[in-house]
Amino acid sequence: MANFLKTLSFLILLSFFPPTLSSPRPSRLHRSPKHAPRFLGKFSCSNYTGPLGAPSYRYETRYFDQDLDHFSFSDLPKFRQRYLINTEHWEGPDQLGPIFFYCGNEGDIEWFAANTGFVWELAPRFRAMIIFPEHRYYGESMPYGSGEEAYKNATTLAHLTAEQALADFAVLITELKRNLSAQACPVVLFGGSYGEVRNSCIQCDEKIFVIVRFIKFLHQTVLAAWMRLKYPHLAIGALASSAPILQFEDLVPPETFYDIVSNDFRRESVSCFNTIKDSWDVIESEGQKSSGLSYLTETFRFCKKLESADDLSNWLSSAYSYLGMGNYPYPADFLMPMPGNPIKEVCRKIDNCPNGTSILQRIFKELVFITIIQELSTALIWMMILMACTEMVMPMSSSKKSSMFPAYNYNYTSDEEWCLENYHVKPRPTWITTEFGGHGFKNALKTFGSNIIFSNGLLDPWSGGSVLEDISETIVALVTEKGAHHLDLRPATAEDPDWLIEQRAAEVKLIQGWLDEYFDRKRAVFDM
Amino acid sequence: MANFLKTLSFLILLSFFPPTLSSPRPSRLHRSPKHAPRFLGKFSCSNYTGPLGAPSYRYETRYFDQDLDHFSFSDLPKFRQRYLINTEHWEGPDQLGPIFFYCGNEGDIEWFAANTGFVWELAPRFRAMIIFPEHRYYGESMPYGSGEEAYKNATTLAHLTAEQALADFAVLITELKRNLSAQACPVVLFGGSYGEVRNSCIQCDEKIFVIVRFIKFLHQTVLAAWMRLKYPHLAIGALASSAPILQFEDLVPPETFYDIVSNDFRRESVSCFNTIKDSWDVIESEGQKSSGLSYLTETFRFCKKLESADDLSNWLSSAYSYLGMGNYPYPADFLMPMPGNPIKEVCRKIDNCPNGTSILQRIFKELVFITIIQELSTALIWMMILMACTEMVMPMSSSKKSSMFPAYNYNYTSDEEWCLENYHVKPRPTWITTEFGGHGFKNALKTFGSNIIFSNGLLDPWSGGSVLEDISETIVALVTEKGAHHLDLRPATAEDPDWLIEQRAAEVKLIQGWLDEYFDRKRAVFDM
Repeated sequence: MANFLKTLSFLILLSFFPPTLSSPRPSRLHRSPKHAPRFLGKFSCSNYTGPLGAPSYRYETRYFDQDLDHFSFSDLPKFRQRYLINTEHWEGPDQLGPIFFYCGNEGDIEWFAANTGFVWELAPRFRAMIIFPEHRYYGESMPYGSGEEAYKNATTLAHLTAEQALADFAVLITELKRNLSAQACPVVLFGGSYGEVRNSCIQCDEKIFVIVRFIKFLHQTVLAAWMRLKYPHLAIGALASSAPILQFEDLVPPETFYDIVSNDFRRESVSCFNTIKDSWDVIESEGQKSSGLSYLTETFRFCKKLESADDLSNWLSSAYSYLGMGNYPYPADFLMPMPGNPIKEVCRKIDNCPNGTSILQRIFKELVFITIIQELSTALIWMMILMACTEMVMPMSSSKKSSMFPAYNYNYTSDEEWCLENYHVKPRPTWITTEFGGHGFKNALKTFGSNIIFSNGLLDPWSGGSVLEDISETIVALVTEKGAHHLDLRPATAEDPDWLIEQRAAEVKLIQGWLDEYFDRKRAVFDM
Repeated sequence: MANFLKTLSFLILLSFFPPTLSSPRPSRLHRSPKHAPRFLGKFSCSNYTGPLGAPSYRYETRYFDQDLDHFSFSDLPKFRQRYLINTEHWEGPDQLGPIFFYCGNEGDIEWFAANTGFVWELAPRFRAMIIFPEHRYYGESMPYGSGEEAYKNATTLAHLTAEQALADFAVLITELKRNLSAQACPVVLFGGSYGEVRNSCIQCDEKIFVIVRFIKFLHQTVLAAWMRLKYPHLAIGALASSAPILQFEDLVPPETFYDIVSNDFRRESVSCFNTIKDSWDVIESEGQKSSGLSYLTETFRFCKKLESADDLSNWLSSAYSYLGMGNYPYPADFLMPMPGNPIKEVCRKIDNCPNGTSILQRIFKELVFITIIQELSTALIWMMILMACTEMVMPMSSSKKSSMFPAYNYNYTSDEEWCLENYHVKPRPTWITTEFGGHGFKNALKTFGSNIIFSNGLLDPWSGGSVLEDISETIVALVTEKGAHHLDLRPATAEDPDWLIEQRAAEVKLIQGWLDEYFDRKRAVFDM
């Protein structure tokens, strides 16, 4: 159940337009649904361009020719990397105006720009330039000229790795600074994650179809931290919000993620937690009945008949995990619009049903308010799984004892078999820790590192794989008890609680400190 | 003249077995000379297996399957990386016995093992394990199963880059430690360079044919330093001997290298310096005479007729540079056996000719004592140039004013054209500084780095591109006025001058400090 690959593959299978997993070659990047939406409901989002109520930010869109392979000299075509740039507040090179560089994650960069209000709000204060580069293989930054070509097969996708993306950033920073005669300007890195692709929405009559896609968050959140580690000479510091850099191999217990989600529910309501915990057996036994799958499909209003009870369990597990990540204190638009404290809301609905309401009905009730109807491009899902089948191997189990989820023991071997069978690639489960650090990593950072903020909210299930305590004077952890997934990077709102305001203020102070130190050093050299 | 590519290509052309530069596909790794040596002289070395008088070191030879491309998931075959291992002095995992890891440079690893006496001498003292891994594409560590296949063309050689070699080391360290349950054992990195391929020797009757190959030293010396920078979590420190990490782009003046060689000669004898400085015009005007090239060929006893006077100048320039690198205080075997203080010897020969000796005769005299006759495998030379045509782009000029060399202004554009025409690859001249640090690099190291010894001898022409002053308390420069190219890594000898003994003692003390600090930290955790 908690098996990422199976969960993801299920989501694909559940899609209206399932790719052929045994030969996964999505034919187009942005496919038109075969079944066009007949009715766009309240939360439909086919024309959706940004978070609700978010200010629109101004930028210029530019392109940069990147090498597809930075680490080898194969004869491969270059590709155009898109980046967004805003210089209206920039002090310019003579005044050593800072450059705020967002490490674009997997998805359309305009979406990230729209969702990272903190950077936009900070720039005028620091008189900084803003750069939002797009991650290769996403948005418009397609190798081989188009998404169709780039996503064709495992070979054309071979260069979709974190190391190549970091090298793209390194080259872009360097060339951009050279181009602007801004070599001496300090760069500050930002990293976080939000929903990535612009949602295209479908609604299937009155039925509900939600795709939850948390695997997307595996990779993208760690880029700023990794960038600081691998290219310390290119930036003076990094704000790495919700970066699960320890969620690999056996660095943290594999149960961490699901245990945190479970605790998020338990702290709101023990009965809610128990209802969910009890629901799996009900679902399973229902699935074993003769018309059980039809009944479950009907009860949960799926457009397409469930193939197994596990499919429903996987889908629900994803939904709960998603709620944990987006468990913000005010209404927000994290992939989909949600009320404030969504877990509280969900539990209220589960708990407040009339006596006699069945577990399945209670579970369904909670989902009604997440009526946003989404569809992930199957090509994108396919890419996400490919990444989990190559280097982004994150072991995850769920414990029947400590979590509300069905028990699942991570089994690398079966995942490897699945990847070989379906994607014809063999994962490298120990590569990320070899490249970016494993056990002893914190000690190495202590002696060989500086200027990183690891910010985390403890409600965020990814926080368990991040850095939650200061490593040194300059590698610090900012932890909020009530925060969820990189809430700090979102635009400020009138509803921001005090602890969030304080967290952001601490970040600003630290960034200011990095810059002051940099300017002092420059001044000292100049005065010599 | 000072143009590396032209110098190197000249050396190839001068070889008995010139590859076709327009289609450079050496057919075998270790070719047999078409003209077998008819006479092996005093310094012949066809059975030569190590430095003169060097002790033989004991090790086991093992192999490890490496991914050819660590940064992408192309469907490429793995290759067998060879490594040498000695555990006889190792304290073992329970005692946290250290691991001394030599970052193998380009060449047969057995040769490096034989030439890095310092590591062998140090290991018993620290009760350390010794690992000498071989660099990919050299020795027995051939992708695609054989040198013949690996060297076939630019595509099969595409993965010959420093980043891939470093990743090989990272994976090998990690897997080896895991395999030995030695995850907690501290790793110390060593890097230096010596002659790489076992010399195969030819002698052409009474004529002299020397190939000097200093471009080899560009890459190999920097691996330990780069390894420390990119994989700080895998080792506790690095001794980077003679590592010209700043010899890229415009980080140091392009004249640095040749100016240092020139000063090496000037400090021995101004008249010698002037003779060499005057010789270029004589060579050039001789070359313009009707039978001038025949005369030069005859005078310098080349086996094959010179095609231009520049060929001779290039060759002489290389020889002088080589003397600068190998300018050791005692007789040594740095690529070829040489007397102690070879520049002093050369200048003595140049200066002590009878009155009336022509400049050309004086120049030739100096070369007589370097009668070692070498041949570099053309496949290896071709690889070296390929590296200079891909990422190892080091701008080098020579100034008529400050050096004894003919004036040459580095011209990237013409080098690029040459590479495109002959190798069908476009160099990436700014990649190395982007990846490993450029301007501001020292400041970055200061805040984001620790435990590196940059050791240099000021006679070494590569010292100008290295780090010659302390960057922080733990990133220190050990500079000796009279040292040449990584003399410190050679085995101790009875003739070692005091300053060399002191330099090595300082290195030992620093390494001891890293280890003590590591053990203290481990002990603190254990005591908690």
